[in-house]
Amino acid sequence: MTDKIIIALDVMSGEQGPSACLDGANISLTRNNNLFFHLFGDQQIIENSLKPFPKLAANSEVHHTDFVVPMDMKPRQALRQGRKVSSMWQAINSVHEDVSGGAVSAGNTGALMAMATFCLRTLRRIDRTAIAAIWPTITGRTIVLDMGANLHVSSENLVDFGFMGAAMARVVFNIEKPRVGILNIGEEEIKGNEDLKAAAATLRDSDMPLEYIGFVEGDGISKGHADVVVTEGFAGNIALKTAEGTARQLATLLRDAFTSSWRAKLAYLLLAPALKTFRQKMDPNNSNGGVFLGLRGIVVKCHGSSDNLGFAHAIDLTAAMIKNNLVNEIRQDLDVFYKDEDTEATDISVQNTQNKDKA
Amino acid sequence: MTDKIIIALDVMSGEQGPSACLDGANISLTRNNNLFFHLFGDQQIIENSLKPFPKLAANSEVHHTDFVVPMDMKPRQALRQGRKVSSMWQAINSVHEDVSGGAVSAGNTGALMAMATFCLRTLRRIDRTAIAAIWPTITGRTIVLDMGANLHVSSENLVDFGFMGAAMARVVFNIEKPRVGILNIGEEEIKGNEDLKAAAATLRDSDMPLEYIGFVEGDGISKGHADVVVTEGFAGNIALKTAEGTARQLATLLRDAFTSSWRAKLAYLLLAPALKTFRQKMDPNNSNGGVFLGLRGIVVKCHGSSDNLGFAHAIDLTAAMIKNNLVNEIRQDLDVFYKDEDTEATDISVQNTQNKDKA
Repeated sequence: MTDKIIIALDVMSGEQGPSACLDGANISLTRNNNLFFHLFGDQQIIENSLKPFPKLAANSEVHHTDFVVPMDMKPRQALRQGRKVSSMWQAINSVHEDVSGGAVSAGNTGALMAMATFCLRTLRRIDRTAIAAIWPTITGRTIVLDMGANLHVSSENLVDFGFMGAAMARVVFNIEKPRVGILNIGEEEIKGNEDLKAAAATLRDSDMPLEYIGFVEGDGISKGHADVVVTEGFAGNIALKTAEGTARQLATLLRDAFTSSWRAKLAYLLLAPALKTFRQKMDPNNSNGGVFLGLRGIVVKCHGSSDNLGFAHAIDLTAAMIKNNLVNEIRQDLDVFYKDEDTEATDISVQNTQNKDKA
Repeated sequence: MTDKIIIALDVMSGEQGPSACLDGANISLTRNNNLFFHLFGDQQIIENSLKPFPKLAANSEVHHTDFVVPMDMKPRQALRQGRKVSSMWQAINSVHEDVSGGAVSAGNTGALMAMATFCLRTLRRIDRTAIAAIWPTITGRTIVLDMGANLHVSSENLVDFGFMGAAMARVVFNIEKPRVGILNIGEEEIKGNEDLKAAAATLRDSDMPLEYIGFVEGDGISKGHADVVVTEGFAGNIALKTAEGTARQLATLLRDAFTSSWRAKLAYLLLAPALKTFRQKMDPNNSNGGVFLGLRGIVVKCHGSSDNLGFAHAIDLTAAMIKNNLVNEIRQDLDVFYKDEDTEATDISVQNTQNKDKA
């Protein structure tokens, strides 16, 4: 069992019910042979839903829980009512107890963040966790964070986000020195507020395994200007939703075009194979999964409306991050970066003691 | 001449040169018979470029200026070097002197905003101007402001933006009570920071000619949830650029699909008429024009890369706002809304005086 990648699933989460989640786990299992799952939720429902997936049944263990956190429950209330008893909490706790390497849930984002932070706690020196999303771009993929865990953040938080995003890019994209940029309303160094400028200066001068490339504008994300784009949660969430909305708007207009005449319908038939690639590249399932960064464990949030393919993608992503030990990667980076500060602090306190001795 | 709509054009602005601007003015002239233009820039260049457009030549007057504000000049420097002598300044000043009803420029945005604010000044009670853009949506069009004139703003500024955007929607879309929303990371009332909540409460309780519909998420813009969406300039600019980037990304992928095989190429030929509608709806030229709101005059900024159709659209928009006297519409709204405050202030000062008398 030691070489297994073990994932905790909040099976009861998601709008499409347990089957979508289990089907997704089964798809992921056919792609990654060494997966093992801890399944949290109503035992009877899960065991029934497992019947079509004998391979998954053989590579998983069901853990009964009584409570499912509702999608509209406030985070604080979820912590009060759902702690210990909910499938969400138990999945996270399985990571906390080192039984699983990471947890996946399609449940209530606020509750998941609250429980994950409460149960796993943040890494040393991290005072703000972030939600990272993977965006499809013209040239490949880009990690954008924060997608809405925090409204506004300090320059130090932005710098931490840069390190965490770069670590994730190294692990998930297999890039040695990811290109990191800061989201701004212009590329020139004079643009943006003081926090952005201070974060830019720190990232530029840092000696970390990343290449700071400067400010990135909204359209720079889809152009693939950077492997990692860092921003506060307010602008990040609005950018994400706006991009989703624009993509949906174009898809609607395109569908109208394809059904507007018999010529257009014929064209659609001829174009079908080429459109398949187009659709795959734009499929939100292929970029499903908000990764919580800054915690002492891996937690991935699937979109609430995820289908089996959406779950499969999020599970693949979780498996990759467990396999390459993302949490340790981030921890080491923070240790290296903040080491100087620690040393300095120690030196000063030593000096102070010496001064005191003299006095 | 009294029924003429008179527009000042910064002919030297824009990356495509004077011809694109003049061609655009000529197109607009064929669509709106009662236009007259004041053309600012190098007299010889303009007169040469006017030759293909005899109708425009007959309905315009050329004003020679020596200086063109460079696209990369800092606003402060532009004000110092370009005041009085530049085509940009002269176009704005023509509005200030009531010779023209509005000015159009495709030049340096920062310089244009600085000059417009300096020359025209803001309306009484407005302490932040905003840039409004018209977005194509699934159902029609939405005005979004601010697109980047201010990074962060107060709740009072957001409320003013709501009034100004609603006035613009009444004038441009001909809607009696435009639906106004505030851009946020969730639709629930508890979402967002205190400024957003305070602005929401004021707009909800105000008795102005608008319907406040609550918070709108990033994807709510393209869904057409509101006629006007209000936001700070940082998030607004990032949303705009992200939408542009996503649209371009999809267009690139679609082009790849259409050229991937002979079947796809044949399909493209069959689809061409239907795609024309698609392209028109998504054409950035059809939503070209950033409208400066909050000034004592109408100034419209075209995209720097505008072609003739882009200029024509921005000029049409300017003409509609002049015809319906947008500035006065905004002024009246502000007077109505702030009237109570003024009355109260007067009452207090009267009371104070009385108290003083008693003392």
